[in-house]
Amino acid sequence: MPQSRHPRPRAPLVLGPFTALLLAFVAISSPVRAQEDEEPQVHAEVTIDGALRDEIRGYRGAVRDIVKHALKDGQAYESLADLCRRAPKRLSGSPGSAAAVALAQAMMKSAGFENVRLEPVMVPHWEPGDLARVRVLTPARGITTPLPIVPLGGSVATPADGIEAEVVEVPSIEALRALEPATVRGKIVYFDRPMDPTMITTFQAYGGAVKQRTLGAVEAGKLGAVAVLIRSVTTLKDDEPHTGAMRYDDGVPRIPAAALSYLAADRLSALIARGEPVRLALELDCKWFEDEQSYNVVGEIVGREKADEVLVVGGHLDSWSIGDGAHDDGAGCMQSVEALRILLRLGLKPRRTIRCVLFMNEENGLRGGTAYHLAHREEMAKHVLALEADAGGFTPRGFSTDARPEGKRILEEIARLLVNVDADKVWGGGGGADISPMAADGVPLVGYRPDSHRYFDVHHSRHDVFASVNERELELGAACMASLLYIVADLEATLPRNGR
Amino acid sequence: MPQSRHPRPRAPLVLGPFTALLLAFVAISSPVRAQEDEEPQVHAEVTIDGALRDEIRGYRGAVRDIVKHALKDGQAYESLADLCRRAPKRLSGSPGSAAAVALAQAMMKSAGFENVRLEPVMVPHWEPGDLARVRVLTPARGITTPLPIVPLGGSVATPADGIEAEVVEVPSIEALRALEPATVRGKIVYFDRPMDPTMITTFQAYGGAVKQRTLGAVEAGKLGAVAVLIRSVTTLKDDEPHTGAMRYDDGVPRIPAAALSYLAADRLSALIARGEPVRLALELDCKWFEDEQSYNVVGEIVGREKADEVLVVGGHLDSWSIGDGAHDDGAGCMQSVEALRILLRLGLKPRRTIRCVLFMNEENGLRGGTAYHLAHREEMAKHVLALEADAGGFTPRGFSTDARPEGKRILEEIARLLVNVDADKVWGGGGGADISPMAADGVPLVGYRPDSHRYFDVHHSRHDVFASVNERELELGAACMASLLYIVADLEATLPRNGR
Repeated sequence: MPQSRHPRPRAPLVLGPFTALLLAFVAISSPVRAQEDEEPQVHAEVTIDGALRDEIRGYRGAVRDIVKHALKDGQAYESLADLCRRAPKRLSGSPGSAAAVALAQAMMKSAGFENVRLEPVMVPHWEPGDLARVRVLTPARGITTPLPIVPLGGSVATPADGIEAEVVEVPSIEALRALEPATVRGKIVYFDRPMDPTMITTFQAYGGAVKQRTLGAVEAGKLGAVAVLIRSVTTLKDDEPHTGAMRYDDGVPRIPAAALSYLAADRLSALIARGEPVRLALELDCKWFEDEQSYNVVGEIVGREKADEVLVVGGHLDSWSIGDGAHDDGAGCMQSVEALRILLRLGLKPRRTIRCVLFMNEENGLRGGTAYHLAHREEMAKHVLALEADAGGFTPRGFSTDARPEGKRILEEIARLLVNVDADKVWGGGGGADISPMAADGVPLVGYRPDSHRYFDVHHSRHDVFASVNERELELGAACMASLLYIVADLEATLPRNGR
Repeated sequence: MPQSRHPRPRAPLVLGPFTALLLAFVAISSPVRAQEDEEPQVHAEVTIDGALRDEIRGYRGAVRDIVKHALKDGQAYESLADLCRRAPKRLSGSPGSAAAVALAQAMMKSAGFENVRLEPVMVPHWEPGDLARVRVLTPARGITTPLPIVPLGGSVATPADGIEAEVVEVPSIEALRALEPATVRGKIVYFDRPMDPTMITTFQAYGGAVKQRTLGAVEAGKLGAVAVLIRSVTTLKDDEPHTGAMRYDDGVPRIPAAALSYLAADRLSALIARGEPVRLALELDCKWFEDEQSYNVVGEIVGREKADEVLVVGGHLDSWSIGDGAHDDGAGCMQSVEALRILLRLGLKPRRTIRCVLFMNEENGLRGGTAYHLAHREEMAKHVLALEADAGGFTPRGFSTDARPEGKRILEEIARLLVNVDADKVWGGGGGADISPMAADGVPLVGYRPDSHRYFDVHHSRHDVFASVNERELELGAACMASLLYIVADLEATLPRNGR
């Protein structure tokens, strides 16, 4: 997908071929697009102007100061502790999300941000309820205890007395479509699609497995199924189920959907494998409400020279309602706030404006990202770059970007200053879901890329709590983000926009 | 230190300057040598022969197979679970260490290693005892509960009724030496030396802080102190104390030594800062015994062509007696075994012999490494490379090596095949404590280098348990080690030795 935006290379390679060795496209946005090709690719060969390269290298001292400050006096970790303690469970429309808006606004003000404000967003309001239970009704030689489940985000409830039906197991939506409708009608469809462990980047494996979660209820509903269960999309083989967004389509019956823990899925599959019909009883009392008023939280460092040129940095303030949204995406939000705070603290006032935007409602609607784009439509031509942190607060690796080769080459040169942190890689790929609407206006998108191995252990589950975050990893990530933002915001020349 | 072994560069740069951008020397051996310079350095410029480069690149498919196999069917995680469950607390001379020897031997046999054997090592036998307590005797406005401590490894006990004395706080050994002896005589010396958080590699910060632990008792004993306390050498600000090796010198009184948890150190420092004398009561019942018979555990894949040329890979099987030694160094041991297992499973029989050596007694004596070197003295000229994994089972970053530029250049080219894993960096530096005696014979040493940020959270403490290990991170590390070993063992040309 990013390739379509890349014009042909124009000049021979000037700097290290190593910087041009790229991993395959890996979207870190959510929902994530899968890409199976993991071989490194040699990117379009582009030059960088010698003076520009020297200008970038002149920021080496600033980067060192930023990194040292983050490691010694960083406040992202303490801020995240506050957020998780005072505003956990920040699902759109929830009291947690309202508390998070107020807390984030207060943080920005106390850190000395300028133009701190709330920008209105109408958000969906869905609640998971108190009851989520699945029992096996043929337990003679099978499972006698309820299997751990959580409703998928947006699911309708079951009738009050639950749904009892036989289960039919399929590995994928494609396999479901290949079944005779009679095989599915009146049944509970169980998608057993684990993440592919051989994918090196877990986001790739997530992309391959998440389709059953998002589309399963629609596809099963079309065939007359009465409910959907999925194997949790996770890398952790334990008994905590993982939720996530799903959708319904108009004209298709809306059937309840829930995720089984990894081990519960193993147990159910083993039971089904015995060959006798397995009947389940499913109860969910999740519920939809009217849309609610909420807000994106915005604050700035106003540029000292080109104040109308804007760099956006942010994450999403909402989370699911299990766990505390520590990694997803409390970490990215607090790192975004911290990036600006570090620059203010070090007196690094850039040429251009850096705007921190904490988006409301990424998880079940993307309303915050959509609202920001709409409200700032006039300003888009002056948006220089958008950076999102929404891949967890893990140890830094680098960045991904959809910037065209000339812009990417500049970002690579900047990332080289982070070689000591071992965060000097720039992959092709997306930036993040919340900033994705800006791509249409040619704004280069960048995603902060921490290590991905532990992310789907905690993602959308009760494991996503503050205790799963490491202080140094989180603070260093903020330093990487602050460094990239500061340099792009301060360079004499404006980063090239993406063409179309 | 490694620079002294490096001959002058002989030829201009041929491949990417990025591969030649190196972080400063960072020893990952333990005890670790500090190096404050964190700026990347351009290494000596060396060529690599084009045919050799092509030969190395020919292993791309093998590396891919190794990585996929490790992620899908790797057994390092299960093996480590076994080790931690069946042989935790593997301090030299303990029942745990004996269980670990038997278990490791069985693992090698069942994985199909050749020439599986135990090589004898006489090891020190020290036990931490059951009692480790420090109480503040001036609690009026201070601490009323005991402060969490652990004895340092090798400490003598206090008298049965403990030691009561005033405490004198110093930030370092240098500061202690600057005191009047009268200020120290009869006192408990408390070294308050935290790790420097601004060091990007935690091993650097460890190197700077650990001297007080290893030498504190000797230096304080010379001045007539009666005991030593240190702030735990850790990155985690909690109430778990971290132990580690200390030493005594002949002719200096042997005084007891223990480590306070990070928060206990904070509390003690705050109490001392009030300016009134603080008296402590210290009780330790740790004990020394006679040396015990133990073993290095050894197994091989015999080379198909140059069987007499040997690559060693290993970690140390012993651990401290708190925690289960999951990261230190159960992880490195199980990854070493796994590296050979993967090659066997994939039918990748290399030209040269790969020998897995699990060393006994790194933590408090280095007897295993010393014994191996002595027993294989005759073979040293045929030792092609030694690789140690002793920096935790965290997400892979690359390798460190003391290989001279020609050898390092080859290792860099091999590591480039791990770019997809983002483990393609090769730093200058040490290999590991157990293999360090081989350096004297010109054997190039390599250290497997995982990410370091979380290591000193768990190191030598009750946090170092299996639950702190991530499956994907551990298995991928084994794949990185297997890849490097296999290629060096299989290349037509032998890796250049280090000169002197």
